[in-house]
Amino acid sequence: MESGNTVYIGKKPIIKYILACITLFHEGLNKITIKARGRSIERAINVVESLRKYYMSDIKVHDVRLGSEIVRSINGEPRRVSTITIYLIRNST
Amino acid sequence: MESGNTVYIGKKPIIKYILACITLFHEGLNKITIKARGRSIERAINVVESLRKYYMSDIKVHDVRLGSEIVRSINGEPRRVSTITIYLIRNST
Repeated sequence: MESGNTVYIGKKPIIKYILACITLFHEGLNKITIKARGRSIERAINVVESLRKYYMSDIKVHDVRLGSEIVRSINGEPRRVSTITIYLIRNST
Repeated sequence: MESGNTVYIGKKPIIKYILACITLFHEGLNKITIKARGRSIERAINVVESLRKYYMSDIKVHDVRLGSEIVRSINGEPRRVSTITIYLIRNST
């Protein structure tokens, strides 16, 4: 779910990811990255919006990158999925 | 589905939205806006990625804005949904 300064959004309850972000910021990072793909993209934006509105008002979206990746499903079919990478920064003022 | 220079992503097949974007660019616009919310967000990124990869390689993502809106579901419950706005520009060179 986390690695370095990156939080990967999956199928867990959204509050888990919000807490992961809060923890990273409280550990002193002022730039973290959120990554999601496919159906988790909507949830990633949810995490960011909830974080900003209800938990840490000093967080800003610094940049958003869109992309796509080829994944193989269980039956081996290659399939293109959309990806999002969201860079958050904390105003240290 | 379209209004001015904006394409709203809904539940239609993705190719419809790709064609809507291509049409706007071919009409001479060099900046168009794609908007989606909730589950359509993933599809919006899909539209952008397909457009860039397979149809118009001179398109660039100029900016991406994340947000959220309160919507009322059929039973009247207010519910927060995530939104995305993607600004595309065409290199006129």
